[in-house]
Amino acid sequence: MLKKVEILSVGTELLMGQIANTNAQFISQHLPEVGLGVYYHSVVGDNPERLTKCLQYALSRSDVIITTGGLGPTQDDLTKEVIARTLGLEMIQDEESANHIRQYFKNTGKVMSENNLRQAFFPAGSTIIDNVQGTAPGCIIEHEGKVIILLPGPPKELIPMFNRHILPFFQKRCDSPLTSKFLRVVGIGESMVEKKLLSLVDKQTNPTLATYAKDGIVSIRVTAHDEGKIPASLLVSDMCGKIVSILGDSVYTDNDEELENTVLKLLIANNLTFSCAESCTGGMLAEKLTAIPGSSKVFKCAAVTYMTESKTEMLGVNPEIIEKFGVVSKETALEMVTGMIKTAKTDVAISITGFAGPQFADEPVGKVCIGVCTPDCTTVKEFKFSGSRDRIRTLSVVYALDMLRRALLHLDIPN
Amino acid sequence: MLKKVEILSVGTELLMGQIANTNAQFISQHLPEVGLGVYYHSVVGDNPERLTKCLQYALSRSDVIITTGGLGPTQDDLTKEVIARTLGLEMIQDEESANHIRQYFKNTGKVMSENNLRQAFFPAGSTIIDNVQGTAPGCIIEHEGKVIILLPGPPKELIPMFNRHILPFFQKRCDSPLTSKFLRVVGIGESMVEKKLLSLVDKQTNPTLATYAKDGIVSIRVTAHDEGKIPASLLVSDMCGKIVSILGDSVYTDNDEELENTVLKLLIANNLTFSCAESCTGGMLAEKLTAIPGSSKVFKCAAVTYMTESKTEMLGVNPEIIEKFGVVSKETALEMVTGMIKTAKTDVAISITGFAGPQFADEPVGKVCIGVCTPDCTTVKEFKFSGSRDRIRTLSVVYALDMLRRALLHLDIPN
Repeated sequence: MLKKVEILSVGTELLMGQIANTNAQFISQHLPEVGLGVYYHSVVGDNPERLTKCLQYALSRSDVIITTGGLGPTQDDLTKEVIARTLGLEMIQDEESANHIRQYFKNTGKVMSENNLRQAFFPAGSTIIDNVQGTAPGCIIEHEGKVIILLPGPPKELIPMFNRHILPFFQKRCDSPLTSKFLRVVGIGESMVEKKLLSLVDKQTNPTLATYAKDGIVSIRVTAHDEGKIPASLLVSDMCGKIVSILGDSVYTDNDEELENTVLKLLIANNLTFSCAESCTGGMLAEKLTAIPGSSKVFKCAAVTYMTESKTEMLGVNPEIIEKFGVVSKETALEMVTGMIKTAKTDVAISITGFAGPQFADEPVGKVCIGVCTPDCTTVKEFKFSGSRDRIRTLSVVYALDMLRRALLHLDIPN
Repeated sequence: MLKKVEILSVGTELLMGQIANTNAQFISQHLPEVGLGVYYHSVVGDNPERLTKCLQYALSRSDVIITTGGLGPTQDDLTKEVIARTLGLEMIQDEESANHIRQYFKNTGKVMSENNLRQAFFPAGSTIIDNVQGTAPGCIIEHEGKVIILLPGPPKELIPMFNRHILPFFQKRCDSPLTSKFLRVVGIGESMVEKKLLSLVDKQTNPTLATYAKDGIVSIRVTAHDEGKIPASLLVSDMCGKIVSILGDSVYTDNDEELENTVLKLLIANNLTFSCAESCTGGMLAEKLTAIPGSSKVFKCAAVTYMTESKTEMLGVNPEIIEKFGVVSKETALEMVTGMIKTAKTDVAISITGFAGPQFADEPVGKVCIGVCTPDCTTVKEFKFSGSRDRIRTLSVVYALDMLRRALLHLDIPN
């Protein structure tokens, strides 16, 4: 049975860091849909000896090998030849592919060199896969119980070939497809999430759980295959229910979406216009929300009041409040958020003021005060973040969005 | 001698396609600067048996192994333990790292679980590398002629550790060190840059030139080694001079810095306060400038006037101008930038208004109008960008910054 997949990418441009290996990412995202697991990615340069060894090693540990790159017309492109030699197969010209290549050059008016016809040669017994976006066809080789698939390097060519030919090829043979759901959690660190879920993780092999943390958000992947008559989707949704019952309203989505998308949807659903007053985050909150198509339905405006006097000039913050409590204080955040509501004439507003660092004088770096105002409530909260300037700014935006999410859903805002 | 490098990335999230392996790309870009070649990338999941085998194979074919990921506090994170076992080394707690982790939790007020202290254990004999961005330190192990380097997975943590510790570590041992300089070019596409530099590229093996394009900026890396008695640095600076004589004032730095840094330095040097009025970019320009420490010296405020009426409410834009010429027009951009100067009482301002897409009604997606106002001049320009919403927003910010750079340096603004 085919189970373990290895993606073997061939190309010196990957080893020079000119491009990231997005082909491996793309293929990896989609193979679980047809019951296959990607166990390894490998990258090797355009060098026949090293490619041969990588291929032999891949054959020794994987059932399916998908190569990307090295199918072009140049001297560098040697994936097919190396694979044929390694498997002991002859190279045979495919007349249809040769005609297709000749036709391509005729149509584009470009001059064809004889090298281009190398692209019409394939290891004997290959199933050839058309390339509608370029001249290098791919192929599928079934050999001694293994499947070896050769795809071209340019994503524009690889993606349609993969979708049209490779996925259906495996779909036909798949007997246990995987189903995944991604929950996302805000306000709890990764190790605390794992601790809380330990009882679930320990007992489980189907579904499996995996966590991944980034910028104050923890993603939890829940993956299952069918078990007897119980479909994978039921196992996954059952597990998601258990997780939510443990983590509660810190789980903001079961649809793998960014927190700003969740908040924007809430604003749109409630038909509430939004504005924000930012200081230390310098426009990052506004930028994140307006990055989403359709944000113009509810996003009215933002004031980045970076210098102290601009808080008074743009938002009408009382300078005596700033003088008395400081520019980073709950009192100033409150003045900013109520000032923004008045100035911008919006339904909902957020204010953020804080010290993002690096250290200057005796500023308490990481102290951030956030205000949220909705038609139902006004609330301010003080945070203490740590890390770099960028991290403090990013966490400020994440926690501000979460405060607004909770206010809109009438949830408690935890201390 | 150390020559062949393998980057071994550990993380199921890579094999599931949740993220692309940008760490391998980043590391690969920079190792040639210290005379090392990257021969292989490998990716394996959070599985001790498979990781052990990958590590053994890497040790058999490479001189330097750099692992990324698997250094966190959770059960999944097992890179250090597997490496210690494979090399036959004990795991020893580093007291300084343990204190650092305790301090981190004390500062942030979060609850530390005992798991977090796993991050303070290292294979015996390791050189520990501080992680200023997180709690998981890295380490360098020198073992039987091989060098094994463990770095954390999050790029925000990996990148500064690599730059501050790993590059200098290899720099010291490199016997034919390479010297590099990075020029950056704005306003000319990559293929045009390559075409203009063709005569320089063709003749050269020392220095070598490589270009890399991202978000409207082309970076040119000029790399040389000593040639007889001529030091590499002289060869590099000579070549940089030739490049600048060809590309002219489109080269905005020979110091590999972001365009916003160049512009911020100009503002600080001229003691000019800055504000901006953004529409389609939604705060991206303000965010980029305020991301730089020290920006508070000159950055006063920003107005993100996203809805049409907020352009009038916040900046005093004449609604008749918007009615007559459209919200995306040179006339509106001019009103926005002069309005911003008055409202914010600053010396210098930028305005950006445009259609970033996706397509809505018959809006001309990609049309962006930018205004710049300095004490010496006021100028507006219309652009036609193409690509995704994100790309159009990013290019708008880049070209706005370049217009301001040129205005401050009294350079021509090209058509």
